[in-house]
Amino acid sequence: MLNNYMRIGIFGGGQLAQMLTQAAISLGIEIVICERVADSPAARYTQHAIVGPWEDETVLTTFAHQCDIVTLENEFIDAGLLERVVAQGVPVWPAPATVAVVQDKLWQKERLAAAGLAVPPFRSVATPDDVLTAAQAFGWPLVLKTRRNGYDGYGNATLRTAEDVLPAWERLTRGGSPLLVEAWVPFTCELAVMVVRGRDGTIASYPVVETVQQNHICHIVRAPAPIEAKLAAQATDLAVAAIQAVDGVGIFGVELFALADGQVLINELAPRPHNSGHYTIEACVTSQFENHLRAVAGWPLGATALRSPAAVMVNLLGRRNGPITPTAITAALAVPGAHMHFYGKREERIGRKMGHVTALGSTLAEAEAIARQAAALVAMPDGQQ
Amino acid sequence: MLNNYMRIGIFGGGQLAQMLTQAAISLGIEIVICERVADSPAARYTQHAIVGPWEDETVLTTFAHQCDIVTLENEFIDAGLLERVVAQGVPVWPAPATVAVVQDKLWQKERLAAAGLAVPPFRSVATPDDVLTAAQAFGWPLVLKTRRNGYDGYGNATLRTAEDVLPAWERLTRGGSPLLVEAWVPFTCELAVMVVRGRDGTIASYPVVETVQQNHICHIVRAPAPIEAKLAAQATDLAVAAIQAVDGVGIFGVELFALADGQVLINELAPRPHNSGHYTIEACVTSQFENHLRAVAGWPLGATALRSPAAVMVNLLGRRNGPITPTAITAALAVPGAHMHFYGKREERIGRKMGHVTALGSTLAEAEAIARQAAALVAMPDGQQ
Repeated sequence: MLNNYMRIGIFGGGQLAQMLTQAAISLGIEIVICERVADSPAARYTQHAIVGPWEDETVLTTFAHQCDIVTLENEFIDAGLLERVVAQGVPVWPAPATVAVVQDKLWQKERLAAAGLAVPPFRSVATPDDVLTAAQAFGWPLVLKTRRNGYDGYGNATLRTAEDVLPAWERLTRGGSPLLVEAWVPFTCELAVMVVRGRDGTIASYPVVETVQQNHICHIVRAPAPIEAKLAAQATDLAVAAIQAVDGVGIFGVELFALADGQVLINELAPRPHNSGHYTIEACVTSQFENHLRAVAGWPLGATALRSPAAVMVNLLGRRNGPITPTAITAALAVPGAHMHFYGKREERIGRKMGHVTALGSTLAEAEAIARQAAALVAMPDGQQ
Repeated sequence: MLNNYMRIGIFGGGQLAQMLTQAAISLGIEIVICERVADSPAARYTQHAIVGPWEDETVLTTFAHQCDIVTLENEFIDAGLLERVVAQGVPVWPAPATVAVVQDKLWQKERLAAAGLAVPPFRSVATPDDVLTAAQAFGWPLVLKTRRNGYDGYGNATLRTAEDVLPAWERLTRGGSPLLVEAWVPFTCELAVMVVRGRDGTIASYPVVETVQQNHICHIVRAPAPIEAKLAAQATDLAVAAIQAVDGVGIFGVELFALADGQVLINELAPRPHNSGHYTIEACVTSQFENHLRAVAGWPLGATALRSPAAVMVNLLGRRNGPITPTAITAALAVPGAHMHFYGKREERIGRKMGHVTALGSTLAEAEAIARQAAALVAMPDGQQ
């Protein structure tokens, strides 16, 4: 070790790195943030911050040499860069090979399908004609996706007829990523499971949650998902098998579709803490953030059980464009039982994740009422409070 | 505000400032640490750290100008220095006048007594002869104390006979602080209550806890204290009245003695987060740290109720002198339900507070068994894990 406490480096300085830092404090772990720009939400809470492009050799080397272990808060870092960190003698968890598979949605689905896990029908497409051919096999609608760098609906298009193909192709290929196409899944609800796996292969899963999206952005998470035990068990088994299939180390978000016929399909994996796991901070014995640190450090995993019968998280999404209002959350703080999390982003943008609120309750309805009440009080203009 | 988030400065960079920082992250509050030495536990988790003697005009001014509000993590800062910060236009909470009264144990007791609150008999002593005179009034044993800068038993002496007076006088006057003497209280148990008071006078109290000391250092905290409801109500009323009497703003620790006859006396106040309130991080709706930040920021206070029937905190006290063992807590992390907190101090010293562990349970016995099991696994020599 570099000194007598473990020092973990994180590629990325957003809210996930910030909440990892919050968990690190309890464990005596020091955090090093590597982010392209200065004054990132996470960099404000460490004395070790490297600012610059990850691709820059000096940035990468300076960063690596300050860390005992490196991890990441988003999957938009090329696995090749992670290999360069490993080559400098600093382990990266999850391993670059895992990130390489997960960050490419085609490779990810191929890996899951090869392991016999249920995923929607998918195929690689090299031309618009390939999409039309896929439509003959899968039927309409189709979902066209970039293989890399998509998030929160960016990089996705739902195609309802042949006329939708060309405009979507045009838009999605702009970033340079190749595309894949998937059958549209008539899901009855979306589920998610956080799975954590240690360096020794020990694996643990959190409760299955229901996620509700708003314009492709996670809006509400209900824990546990109000579904039958059999369905929850099926979702958990799939999620655990998926993380084993990609040889994951650390925390992973597994998004799933539940179908009317009782089938569950894997939608996507995220090789990092995930929005659908924020509720674990207050609602579970060990948060997803603490368990990620334990896993990548090679330490024992913590218990993942719920501490409350029900928990609901509501995202605080930006409602306007402009500098953040200083007193945005003060009114919401008055709601008893509302656990506020405000990420410290300088600029509010419509739809941007500015924070979240979690509430616990004896029922989902009780928790959701508290969380929604608090969320509705956030971001009122100055002077109205 | 200096920027679009609130920035709170803390005098002191120890574990209390570190846990305040952890709570600040959720609220979007930025932290500035002012500490005499570099590499303090809290300074590692902020990009805003001022290093130097608090008395230095440049240090004080540089610090003040980076903060919207200033607070403190220990009471050993002269209230006159806090007044200098206020004179620069930066509010200090708790107010310098409150800190002045609380940091002097004679003034503190005088203020409490003047408010009609029950405290042990006490008086100021200017000479060893004054102590002998006090013994005639109070009887033996007596407790001789420095008026300022005492903590964890430093600055205290129990006098059982007249022969004990001179050696204790010699030792305790070395630091230059005047002394006071108190009647020794035959308590049946020690209690503590955390009280938080907002800038608008709103006040809230946490559950009454039992504290168990080891060599004058807090060792175990049991929440709620296993005492009758009537006694708990009496302790709560006294604690709340005490913080009103000193016009406190922020979180305060109130230590109390419970006597065999059902009487409760105030032992001491601490104008800051307190070891007897660490259990609130996992066990209460809002932690003592978050509520301190809410109070000094002028924001609504959070709910203080227990989230679990019982919680027990065990301090991790140093068992040897030397550099900290890197893998000190890994074995303890394997104990399910043990919430580990390790403060990141570089040097272990016998009796030094290195961290703490909190466990929850349906009974105190269940929680205490978990916390003790984890604590016993900490600080094993390298290689034994």
